[in-house]
Amino acid sequence: MLPEVNLRPPFNITRASHVVLHVADLAKSREFYVNIVGLVVSDQTEDTCYLRGLAEACHHSLVLVQSQGAATCKRIGFRVFFEEDLDLAYAFFKAEGLPAEWAEVAHQGRTLHVEDPYGTKLELCASMETRPRMYLEIEKFKGAHGQRLDHYQIFSPDTHASCAFYSRLGFRNSEYLAHGDQLLGAFMYRKGTCLDLAIVQNDGPCLHHFAYTVSESHNIFTACDLAGIYGYSASVERGPGRHGPGGMLFVYLRDPDGHRVELFNSHYQTIDIEIEPVRWDAATLSTNVRWGLPAPHRWYFEATPFEGAVQIATASPPKPETLETYVQKLSAAQP
Amino acid sequence: MLPEVNLRPPFNITRASHVVLHVADLAKSREFYVNIVGLVVSDQTEDTCYLRGLAEACHHSLVLVQSQGAATCKRIGFRVFFEEDLDLAYAFFKAEGLPAEWAEVAHQGRTLHVEDPYGTKLELCASMETRPRMYLEIEKFKGAHGQRLDHYQIFSPDTHASCAFYSRLGFRNSEYLAHGDQLLGAFMYRKGTCLDLAIVQNDGPCLHHFAYTVSESHNIFTACDLAGIYGYSASVERGPGRHGPGGMLFVYLRDPDGHRVELFNSHYQTIDIEIEPVRWDAATLSTNVRWGLPAPHRWYFEATPFEGAVQIATASPPKPETLETYVQKLSAAQP
Amino acid sequence: MLPEVNLRPPFNITRASHVVLHVADLAKSREFYVNIVGLVVSDQTEDTCYLRGLAEACHHSLVLVQSQGAATCKRIGFRVFFEEDLDLAYAFFKAEGLPAEWAEVAHQGRTLHVEDPYGTKLELCASMETRPRMYLEIEKFKGAHGQRLDHYQIFSPDTHASCAFYSRLGFRNSEYLAHGDQLLGAFMYRKGTCLDLAIVQNDGPCLHHFAYTVSESHNIFTACDLAGIYGYSASVERGPGRHGPGGMLFVYLRDPDGHRVELFNSHYQTIDIEIEPVRWDAATLSTNVRWGLPAPHRWYFEATPFEGAVQIATASPPKPETLETYVQKLSAAQP
Amino acid sequence: MLPEVNLRPPFNITRASHVVLHVADLAKSREFYVNIVGLVVSDQTEDTCYLRGLAEACHHSLVLVQSQGAATCKRIGFRVFFEEDLDLAYAFFKAEGLPAEWAEVAHQGRTLHVEDPYGTKLELCASMETRPRMYLEIEKFKGAHGQRLDHYQIFSPDTHASCAFYSRLGFRNSEYLAHGDQLLGAFMYRKGTCLDLAIVQNDGPCLHHFAYTVSESHNIFTACDLAGIYGYSASVERGPGRHGPGGMLFVYLRDPDGHRVELFNSHYQTIDIEIEPVRWDAATLSTNVRWGLPAPHRWYFEATPFEGAVQIATASPPKPETLETYVQKLSAAQP
Repeated sequence: MLPEVNLRPPFNITRASHVVLHVADLAKSREFYVNIVGLVVSDQTEDTCYLRGLAEACHHSLVLVQSQGAATCKRIGFRVFFEEDLDLAYAFFKAEGLPAEWAEVAHQGRTLHVEDPYGTKLELCASMETRPRMYLEIEKFKGAHGQRLDHYQIFSPDTHASCAFYSRLGFRNSEYLAHGDQLLGAFMYRKGTCLDLAIVQNDGPCLHHFAYTVSESHNIFTACDLAGIYGYSASVERGPGRHGPGGMLFVYLRDPDGHRVELFNSHYQTIDIEIEPVRWDAATLSTNVRWGLPAPHRWYFEATPFEGAVQIATASPPKPETLETYVQKLSAAQP
Repeated sequence: MLPEVNLRPPFNITRASHVVLHVADLAKSREFYVNIVGLVVSDQTEDTCYLRGLAEACHHSLVLVQSQGAATCKRIGFRVFFEEDLDLAYAFFKAEGLPAEWAEVAHQGRTLHVEDPYGTKLELCASMETRPRMYLEIEKFKGAHGQRLDHYQIFSPDTHASCAFYSRLGFRNSEYLAHGDQLLGAFMYRKGTCLDLAIVQNDGPCLHHFAYTVSESHNIFTACDLAGIYGYSASVERGPGRHGPGGMLFVYLRDPDGHRVELFNSHYQTIDIEIEPVRWDAATLSTNVRWGLPAPHRWYFEATPFEGAVQIATASPPKPETLETYVQKLSAAQP
Repeated sequence: MLPEVNLRPPFNITRASHVVLHVADLAKSREFYVNIVGLVVSDQTEDTCYLRGLAEACHHSLVLVQSQGAATCKRIGFRVFFEEDLDLAYAFFKAEGLPAEWAEVAHQGRTLHVEDPYGTKLELCASMETRPRMYLEIEKFKGAHGQRLDHYQIFSPDTHASCAFYSRLGFRNSEYLAHGDQLLGAFMYRKGTCLDLAIVQNDGPCLHHFAYTVSESHNIFTACDLAGIYGYSASVERGPGRHGPGGMLFVYLRDPDGHRVELFNSHYQTIDIEIEPVRWDAATLSTNVRWGLPAPHRWYFEATPFEGAVQIATASPPKPETLETYVQKLSAAQP
Repeated sequence: MLPEVNLRPPFNITRASHVVLHVADLAKSREFYVNIVGLVVSDQTEDTCYLRGLAEACHHSLVLVQSQGAATCKRIGFRVFFEEDLDLAYAFFKAEGLPAEWAEVAHQGRTLHVEDPYGTKLELCASMETRPRMYLEIEKFKGAHGQRLDHYQIFSPDTHASCAFYSRLGFRNSEYLAHGDQLLGAFMYRKGTCLDLAIVQNDGPCLHHFAYTVSESHNIFTACDLAGIYGYSASVERGPGRHGPGGMLFVYLRDPDGHRVELFNSHYQTIDIEIEPVRWDAATLSTNVRWGLPAPHRWYFEATPFEGAVQIATASPPKPETLETYVQKLSAAQP
């Protein structure tokens, strides 16, 4: 049921790279990501803060932009391997009749702005300024020691169609979620681990979350503890828990604007093409497939819109077991 | 507001020692505690299984007894320092008009059965058979590597009265929970850490839970993962989370009979008498004071009765924020 | 000073894949890798045992072959992306005048045996049989929970020449060790982390070690503890310690035949081509650059020969500070 | 062979409490203990810095005193339970013909200075000022997150005689080291874990080391990493390793004056009197009984003298396998 993957894609996307978010209070958001997630500031201007994880050598994986308006996502970024992949990408998107235009972006090499068929705003570049990796400068560590941006999860009104589009760009599924012959969730990667881009079915396009890796499971507890200390205990939205698909330990936090960031501990290695994607069945899967409580309703249905994107309602919205429906059943069972 | 502590108590209780539980299916319960909690079996007869934690040298800290009837708790055990403390204890309980009688208990020295004023069934002894500590026999480890029994939490219809009783026996509070001048929770210890006996207000006497220590925070995730693997995912009742009082990382599991066992990582050291107990205010405290979801209703109100004990309704039952009430508010806030 | 890298190599090697070792006692070696490293057995025949790490889906990453003779390494394996990469590889090696021949290897797809210019025995294949990843079957875990094969380190009589050869195949340096303008150590990768193949200067070709990842730092202590328990305490050859280049926590064990296996915790992500390799200077670098004792002489000079390979003496052997020379200085300083 | 323990000692010592050290450079030593060990400063005057572990409520467990002269240890402190225990202690030491005099010590209650029969300088008090425990103020954590002072190890010219003295004060052995019928090491405790005072045979009296607990094994690696970062890589004197007696993971650091501090992860619980001390045999025990390299000569023979104490040569100095003798054997075995 999965779309065919083009293993020789028209241009070479290598990995999820950086996310650009509008925030209502730059200083407050910066503190959140520094003190709780543990990112380091690479640069800051009056209205923009550039952050990276401790293990990252590229200039930024998170860009916070002071906004007067809505807390949208401006772009999610992917890296391509060669400069010339940008030109090939430009040609591809133009040929598809999709938006594609060159942009000047600080601290990045030549940059291309494109959109997928549902209006997800993407940004491609082949290089960034570099900075020293900080992963051994332990004396400067803060927060949960966020190591590197790993992946995004987006809402698409049609998961299969979106999955088919990214499959043409060489994205493969490590795991996927289906109901009968309907694809509901596609966990796709380009780099050699489980994920660069997860696509789930819902009104979109929206950014559901972006995820940073942490080194060890205790960092997940530290993230929660610091969220509590800094006044964000209600922002620990889901977890700590263990994922079904992918199998990682995770926690989801909501930042001051409600953008959702996941911290998780590690992925297995993909790469080889003979390995079949793992299928999960929606009929038997709840989000607490391993243990723990289901995710709350808002985890399923709230997400960050992309700046200027037109929201498209999905024909088949998810009907998950939520914390709310689970608790209703619990209550009904009480004497 | 705390009762006066007798620092020269009439006899010397040293620590929480062992819990004796009725179970409906001995083999199943044994598997639960071996495979998930990680206890080791010291001995087993046709109807009784004796278990201990990896770091324990005494014969048992958990005794499972095959039962035809209700899954009650037979006794919670405390150790006294000297043999003669048993005689002093006998005299004390008799003088108080409380039940006290000698018992023969396998693998234990001379044993005394007594009850506190609300009928909590206690068992005192001064010695046990010993077994090698297993804490370095890593090749035999299972489950979450439960190290040692640490404490009990009981329901008392009158926390202040119960706390006053145990204060006369030399128990001190490390922390306590109050509402105005009403004592709602007493976190009491004899050994030099936070807890041997926690007392919270509710219909009782009941055993709310008993707790084993684990060495590191990752063991808590392992407990959850194994609960999921062995079919007990719904038994992960609360957590993983971080306690308000005491501040430990914890998870609560329900065993096959619904007995509740806590795994937590570590306590600070008490001992010195000049240190004031930490006060927590019920008005500002929810059970998720640090982060995470509130405990479900059943965590607050379900507990294991003591065998043969008459339940006494409390005059002021707790009115906690539960998962259920919290979720109701969440739902109400949704558009 | 680093050789030019061909970023469009003649064929696409994707990662280090598997190592094939001769062992004197198959059962004993199997026990070592299962009980201490924590690998799982995928298959076993009378004279061959196939093992994989907990997170691996491919049939084997370690193949132990019962031998009557010397404990040599038969081959180190690399994966190529497409079947046709094998044909391209065949053509390349033939054109170079290097050995290249097709082989039948159990549980692998079409397999090519080749040698680098110094006689290092390589094995290339594009696919293997697959097995379920075991990384969440915690109830079956043993040993240090070895996750996956990560890389090899080999001895080359001429590091620069070897590095130049592998650079033509698309291998890049994440870090390197130099003395003035002499390249002494090349830490090269194809997959998106620090290493697939480390090359250090010494008499060769030899396999210095192969390395498995572990999830968390505590697994490194567990490996040591289990080595002690199973009678291999003297086989904990170096560490636990923290690497200079790469910066990982590590321990090196010698297996029953003296083959050296490293366990280490994690690597940063590479991938992007604008990031410069990190240079380490041999003049200022000791192997205990971070902390801890220098490696013993045998760690520097003992390695596993490749089966049938002619040893070539290096013109400039390493002159490291060893544990032995360090201790001599310590002793001289004592009164 | 162990001396008889007085289980009803003349006064009640409860635990190891604090160590007072002369240092050559107060600022430098403070930085060492704050940045590497992770202690917090409770107070500082011109010439004295008072530190405590994150989990400690008492004012200080380490007192650094600026010195013009030798880097001696002024005192090691123990707590007694009641004020009146101080008077009982005074009477006891006087009756023994041992030094005992009252002292005024800042931030402590009434304080008694005494000496054991070999001149070990002890300080007893029943109370201190208190400070908030910091163990959950994660945002302020530094270093290896040292939790609390746990124990001391001293040199005694006659271990058996010293052990006999402390046994009269109620100290019990959790484990001990013997050669035939000669006691070489006594691992003694008052609080309910393995250790408050370890006594090993050597010229003395000297303070071999004092030890702080850490919460998890990864903190031990952090201590080493930070030692390296702050210029103390050569001060990581022994470890990380696993103890024979006690079985803890450990690392030993030398501070700027050469005082030795151990960080270790956890102890089992003692308390019960029926449990026999564990015997270790010097003939079969090396210090690397579990795994890892033997301790260097200086770890065995260097220690901090007590201020003003007369050194007494032991009649039977230790003859351990050291790193130096071990390496000599290694070297001899090399071709």
